Amino acid sequence: MAFNMKQHVNTGVSRKVAGAGRFPAVAVRAVAAQAPPAAVAETKQAYGVFRLSYDTQNEDPSLTRSWKKTIKVAVTGASGNISNHLLFMLASGEVYGKDQPIALQLLGSERSKEALEGVAMELEDSLYPLLREVSIGTDPYEVFGDADWALMIGAKPRGPGMERADLLQQNGEIFQVQGRALNESASRNCKVIVVGNPCNTNALIAMENAPNIPRKNFHALTRLDENRAKCQLALKSGKFYTSISRVAIWGNHSTTQVPDYINARIGGIPATDVIRDMKWFREEFTPKVALRGGALIKKWGRSSAASTAVSVADAIRSLVTPTPPGDCFSTGVISDGNQYGVREGLIFSFPCRSKGDGDYEICDDFIVDEWLRNKIRATEDELQKEKECVSHLIGMMGGSCSLRGVEDTTVPGEN
Amino acid sequence: MAFNMKQHVNTGVSRKVAGAGRFPAVAVRAVAAQAPPAAVAETKQAYGVFRLSYDTQNEDPSLTRSWKKTIKVAVTGASGNISNHLLFMLASGEVYGKDQPIALQLLGSERSKEALEGVAMELEDSLYPLLREVSIGTDPYEVFGDADWALMIGAKPRGPGMERADLLQQNGEIFQVQGRALNESASRNCKVIVVGNPCNTNALIAMENAPNIPRKNFHALTRLDENRAKCQLALKSGKFYTSISRVAIWGNHSTTQVPDYINARIGGIPATDVIRDMKWFREEFTPKVALRGGALIKKWGRSSAASTAVSVADAIRSLVTPTPPGDCFSTGVISDGNQYGVREGLIFSFPCRSKGDGDYEICDDFIVDEWLRNKIRATEDELQKEKECVSHLIGMMGGSCSLRGVEDTTVPGEN
Repeated sequence: MAFNMKQHVNTGVSRKVAGAGRFPAVAVRAVAAQAPPAAVAETKQAYGVFRLSYDTQNEDPSLTRSWKKTIKVAVTGASGNISNHLLFMLASGEVYGKDQPIALQLLGSERSKEALEGVAMELEDSLYPLLREVSIGTDPYEVFGDADWALMIGAKPRGPGMERADLLQQNGEIFQVQGRALNESASRNCKVIVVGNPCNTNALIAMENAPNIPRKNFHALTRLDENRAKCQLALKSGKFYTSISRVAIWGNHSTTQVPDYINARIGGIPATDVIRDMKWFREEFTPKVALRGGALIKKWGRSSAASTAVSVADAIRSLVTPTPPGDCFSTGVISDGNQYGVREGLIFSFPCRSKGDGDYEICDDFIVDEWLRNKIRATEDELQKEKECVSHLIGMMGGSCSLRGVEDTTVPGEN
Repeated sequence: MAFNMKQHVNTGVSRKVAGAGRFPAVAVRAVAAQAPPAAVAETKQAYGVFRLSYDTQNEDPSLTRSWKKTIKVAVTGASGNISNHLLFMLASGEVYGKDQPIALQLLGSERSKEALEGVAMELEDSLYPLLREVSIGTDPYEVFGDADWALMIGAKPRGPGMERADLLQQNGEIFQVQGRALNESASRNCKVIVVGNPCNTNALIAMENAPNIPRKNFHALTRLDENRAKCQLALKSGKFYTSISRVAIWGNHSTTQVPDYINARIGGIPATDVIRDMKWFREEFTPKVALRGGALIKKWGRSSAASTAVSVADAIRSLVTPTPPGDCFSTGVISDGNQYGVREGLIFSFPCRSKGDGDYEICDDFIVDEWLRNKIRATEDELQKEKECVSHLIGMMGGSCSLRGVEDTTVPGEN
């Protein structure tokens, strides 16, 4: 069957935005301190030359092979530094595959709108053959339209004198709005990866505000922590990166995170049999991982946007390609039904594996010794307290915030 | 035959640096206003877990396949924004190929040394399996050691009130030093791509100061201009990027550049037969390409580092993969022996093709009509004048700089 070549096809967002669905638009906008008022929200703008459909009789034979359906990837904080790396990685085909056409739907603020246009123009100039559409906008209800993936990079940075509890509150409100927007507009099987901090609790808020999307589709990024843990094991053992496997990050993306050396393997052998230095594991390994971002920002003068973007790309790749047998990857996911006794209802980082279909399961064969169990309890307690601080954003009764005046556990070098 | 696994193998720089070879060290350092004094130049530092040699009996079967020899890629301006994109593209295997191990040798200034360390640490954290070594340093003689490729991104930005003639002078001195360092230290068949502006004349200076390296190995980056030209043809015609071919950029990477619509094809048909708007070609196309960087910097607030890095990656890829039949790519190369009547001894952008062996030839089948010939003459004249302004840096007699007080032709958005 021959189709006509259709260019300049912008499918746009067909669903109605304001007032449709579960949440009345006014209520949604009322809490949207960071969302643009409806009056200034514009229809998303599209860039590039579109080819969302294909001509099977095209003169160019490379276009006649069977294409996958274009996937729509929404990215928030799209004019920021992490996105500036990530978008080009996504567009190159390195993440979703060299035969996977992609549409990028970029969310920014009114203030960053011109910068977003600049990003879109740079993507145009890069001539990526898999990049089929770039659209930009300031309204999450529009930008998330039919999104198969939502990469939630954007979050407000912490202002001077703000505690983590304030950050939870401020960013929690953004993720409540964006969760509702996902619920209304995104694909019913949208996969969501939250990078903006505090990412576990932000992911929880988005999830609780998006009941139409499966709870297990929400992820908080702990892959950068896993990558940093693998790097430290490689540096300490002198073994190459590719020989390091089964490195789990448990719990929260904060300094209470637990990089797991008990189950880690180097060249297939327990890491503790290769690096025979329990003092190093107990006292140095975890801080080296958790404080790496701080060490980097001191050197580099800015936060580690490039390696963060690489870890987001890795996190996606882990869901769309099968996990090698026996290995795992770390991601913060809903703890419901986990086999490790972590209380339910938290976004908690576990070792997971995937068949490469975008879904995953929590690995059930990790050994938890007493040291690990105690560490897991501590990060679990922190996540429970974070949850109580944002109870009003997730429709939970009671809950008072006990995280004021406590030690700051934000990963250094991040907000 | 079985080799032992050798890790932490840093081959270092075996050649003697100071005083060796053609240029006496004192003379070299004397002109090196931007190079560190010999007293503070440190031996390059190495990062990551090295595996420059391989164990053919390794437990990991992925390591036992036949590896290509690791290539050494030196990058200047390595802590800058363009490099911050480019280095991760190089390390990912997207540029030199997924079976090509790579060592990155990063050159910075004393001032940027900490930032360079940060970049190296971020590359470590990214766990790229093809990245076999990262070393950093401030002495070009060390950092260029045995380099198979030298990507010369670094250049001093223009200070307030400086003319292009001043920039030619200031950066010319850097490229004289770096050309001499290449001559001493780099692989005898090193491929050099100059990005730092004014890139054509900088490449000329480096080439003239590196007589031991073939003249045709020196390139000035005009690929970003080509990509922008293709983008504009795609946007105007509504045809997808992949259908645009044979888009040559002639001459200087400045506003006198000539994006060639005469020979360009869209879907195999002359572009002028697809876009039937000669007024657009004559009046709008060239400024749209040459002024794109300026339009971007206005939107984006910073120069287009990501798309520049993409174009450097494209430029390398064009040399290490065969050019599709009938197509071409643009690169600024020595004009000696060209078939288009451009005077010899200039680094001039021509349409080229490659067998994918790192070498290239200038395409001989491009039609040059009167319009194109006049445009080529103008950019050629400019390059000749630039050459005369730097005559003292390339051992040329006479030559006086006639580029003072003339219109600035630097591509907007760049330095």
